[in-house]
Amino acid sequence: MRKKSSNSDINVPENEGLDRRSFLRAGLAGSTALAAGGLAGASGAKAAGLDIPIWSQQLGIDVDALPYGKPSVYESGVVRRSVDWLTATRESSINFTPLYALDGFVTPNGICFERHHGGAAEVDPAQHHLMINGMVDRPLLFSVEDLLRLPRVSRFFFLECAANGGMEWRNAQLNGVQYTHGMVHCVQYTGVPLKLLLEEAGVKPKADWIMVEGGDSAGMNRSIPMAKALDDCIVALFMNGERLRVEQGYPVRLVVPGFEGNMWVKWLRRIEVGDGAWQAREETSKYTDLMPDGRARRFTWEMDCKSVITNPCPENPIPGKGANVLTGLAWSGRGTVTRVDVSMDGGRNWLEARLEGPVMPKCLTRFYLDGWEWDGSEVYLQSRAMDDTGYVQPQMVELQKVRGVNSIYHNNAIQTWHVLKSGEVENVRLG
Amino acid sequence: MRKKSSNSDINVPENEGLDRRSFLRAGLAGSTALAAGGLAGASGAKAAGLDIPIWSQQLGIDVDALPYGKPSVYESGVVRRSVDWLTATRESSINFTPLYALDGFVTPNGICFERHHGGAAEVDPAQHHLMINGMVDRPLLFSVEDLLRLPRVSRFFFLECAANGGMEWRNAQLNGVQYTHGMVHCVQYTGVPLKLLLEEAGVKPKADWIMVEGGDSAGMNRSIPMAKALDDCIVALFMNGERLRVEQGYPVRLVVPGFEGNMWVKWLRRIEVGDGAWQAREETSKYTDLMPDGRARRFTWEMDCKSVITNPCPENPIPGKGANVLTGLAWSGRGTVTRVDVSMDGGRNWLEARLEGPVMPKCLTRFYLDGWEWDGSEVYLQSRAMDDTGYVQPQMVELQKVRGVNSIYHNNAIQTWHVLKSGEVENVRLG
Repeated sequence: MRKKSSNSDINVPENEGLDRRSFLRAGLAGSTALAAGGLAGASGAKAAGLDIPIWSQQLGIDVDALPYGKPSVYESGVVRRSVDWLTATRESSINFTPLYALDGFVTPNGICFERHHGGAAEVDPAQHHLMINGMVDRPLLFSVEDLLRLPRVSRFFFLECAANGGMEWRNAQLNGVQYTHGMVHCVQYTGVPLKLLLEEAGVKPKADWIMVEGGDSAGMNRSIPMAKALDDCIVALFMNGERLRVEQGYPVRLVVPGFEGNMWVKWLRRIEVGDGAWQAREETSKYTDLMPDGRARRFTWEMDCKSVITNPCPENPIPGKGANVLTGLAWSGRGTVTRVDVSMDGGRNWLEARLEGPVMPKCLTRFYLDGWEWDGSEVYLQSRAMDDTGYVQPQMVELQKVRGVNSIYHNNAIQTWHVLKSGEVENVRLG
Repeated sequence: MRKKSSNSDINVPENEGLDRRSFLRAGLAGSTALAAGGLAGASGAKAAGLDIPIWSQQLGIDVDALPYGKPSVYESGVVRRSVDWLTATRESSINFTPLYALDGFVTPNGICFERHHGGAAEVDPAQHHLMINGMVDRPLLFSVEDLLRLPRVSRFFFLECAANGGMEWRNAQLNGVQYTHGMVHCVQYTGVPLKLLLEEAGVKPKADWIMVEGGDSAGMNRSIPMAKALDDCIVALFMNGERLRVEQGYPVRLVVPGFEGNMWVKWLRRIEVGDGAWQAREETSKYTDLMPDGRARRFTWEMDCKSVITNPCPENPIPGKGANVLTGLAWSGRGTVTRVDVSMDGGRNWLEARLEGPVMPKCLTRFYLDGWEWDGSEVYLQSRAMDDTGYVQPQMVELQKVRGVNSIYHNNAIQTWHVLKSGEVENVRLG
């Protein structure tokens, strides 16, 4: 027979010997943790833990207060941030996902990074249409209501800007994972397979490209090869369960899994079918890779395998010796992440991390190095991802040998975090 | 050589014969759709589709405007809603997830339903502690910072209130899926396995239950058998990537996969280990199933296999004949959904739906009946889910034979939507 539990139950007798420190001092991995007892730290902890706090004494927030909720005021710093010197205007600019504050692999819609070329268009869905024209048997025009009546799929995919890490090609510059890697997010998209729409329009035999065009003031447009268009692209209407956010292309955006984010045209209004690439501005003067010999690689859409440690990182210094969380994200635009290794010594020795499921193609994958304890010494932390094509994420020196340092795009090099004896973490370049 | 694309390209020549109606008229399934051409509806559609809308002519929203974003103003109706007559106070009440407006299986954090017994506690994480006491070798006290240093897992789980559908036991009452089924949500939780914490405290051999207690003014507490505590429970710190929302237990909530939501104690402050159930208020006078003979079933935590069609539904009438989306959600607290069938005639004949992946245990599963077309006739829509224990979701008449109509908990009966010739949808009870 148990005694009835009530608020007064939290007045635990003094002699229960609460021990909050042995756990962290000894870490979880060693058997010493289980042997450690004692009263260390208990008196201080008790004072805080055994009081009846004010929120246990008064009614809280009612169920009608926030029809659409928002984060705690204590998390008000977890927001998208931009970099002042990066671009001339705020309407043609970028902000960054606060990766340091996140776990799991889903990005909340409110903090998915934004990249606009003419600002986020505020589209009235009742006035918006999607046209399919060009080399088709039947040009088609869809209202949003029409699209909402067509067959849907729901898939998780990462979206990464081609310029993610672009400021880091020559050297370590930005001291935070939000800025070095924050042009990536990952949500569950729901929408109509593009293949269905193209089949309905009837693609003419000689057509081998499409051009996709957005309804924003930049008239963003890109060419996509027909093979990709007929593969896994989605005309998306929902993200993470709800309708798209304005800054992510509401009411219609194209999802081009594994390909650079610039091709995921937002406020999608037109798909033209043709027999060659359009050579649009954003695939000629921009979003090409300037090589050491002065020539430019074009149509390098697929985002190569990549990873980064999100804790610890410059924004998350290590709070003390002992047990600490080592976690990060890995992804590949060419397939599925098969393995992530972590190094403590700048890439000389590696430990295999645990991949948290579900591990899905062209999706962020969360990894953890379980049982990690910090002994207070300097560490050069790296993570290295592999995918199911056999590709291994390269060190920057290897990448530079091939690609030089002229480009601002497609940097998928291994990131180094230098952990100082203070526990602070810095972005550094080795070798 | 392609012509350069620009905004003016959307002025498609009249003779391209835009056809927006043949697609929907014929549906996607039949070959007639591919043969259909013509200009039907093109002139009206063109007027709307080929103009240059205002948002294509001016700069949009800049990247610093919304550090933490929110939905489009056109989606402002997609919110949690409560029912006026359901409870006496708003602090001890419930609101409902707008399932009708969602797709995929992830619920955005802002519209995950809430259930409070004393309002949502606004807890200062710097002042919050989690105590483990009772029949343990080492009573422990953790700050939130301590918990953030311990090993983590990230898992998707549904959370369903035991009273979901509780108003529907005797008859069809609430005309909307938000109210009949909206006490469920599904997010990716990240936190520390409860097993780790209990092992660190050292559970004494005779201990076979835990009691979990929240920091709200209700002092919500429940008993959980040790076998479950050591299985898949998580002391969660994050949901859908970011830290928990206030109304979902910030900074610490217990995740009890597959079990009724009442046991997922929010603002978790204490775990007591003992050798029997506590017989707390919320597991004796409430959250028990009153049977026809006047006795009550207790400790009926596991949420049985269940499903519901979320489109069409009372909030989503069918807009017209032809192609339409038929989709819904299925889940089981005992395992993994293996199959969902859909009936058009109130359960006489069934068609197998497509399950969208990833299909995971104790997680919402999205299903679609592809190629469905509505011919304008009356339909009695039902969905029926099965799980990997072999269990089949029952009709209400079957459920009532065993359980009677006294309970307000654990209604997992098949839902019937009556589609009228107008396309409107009503909640009805058959048989």
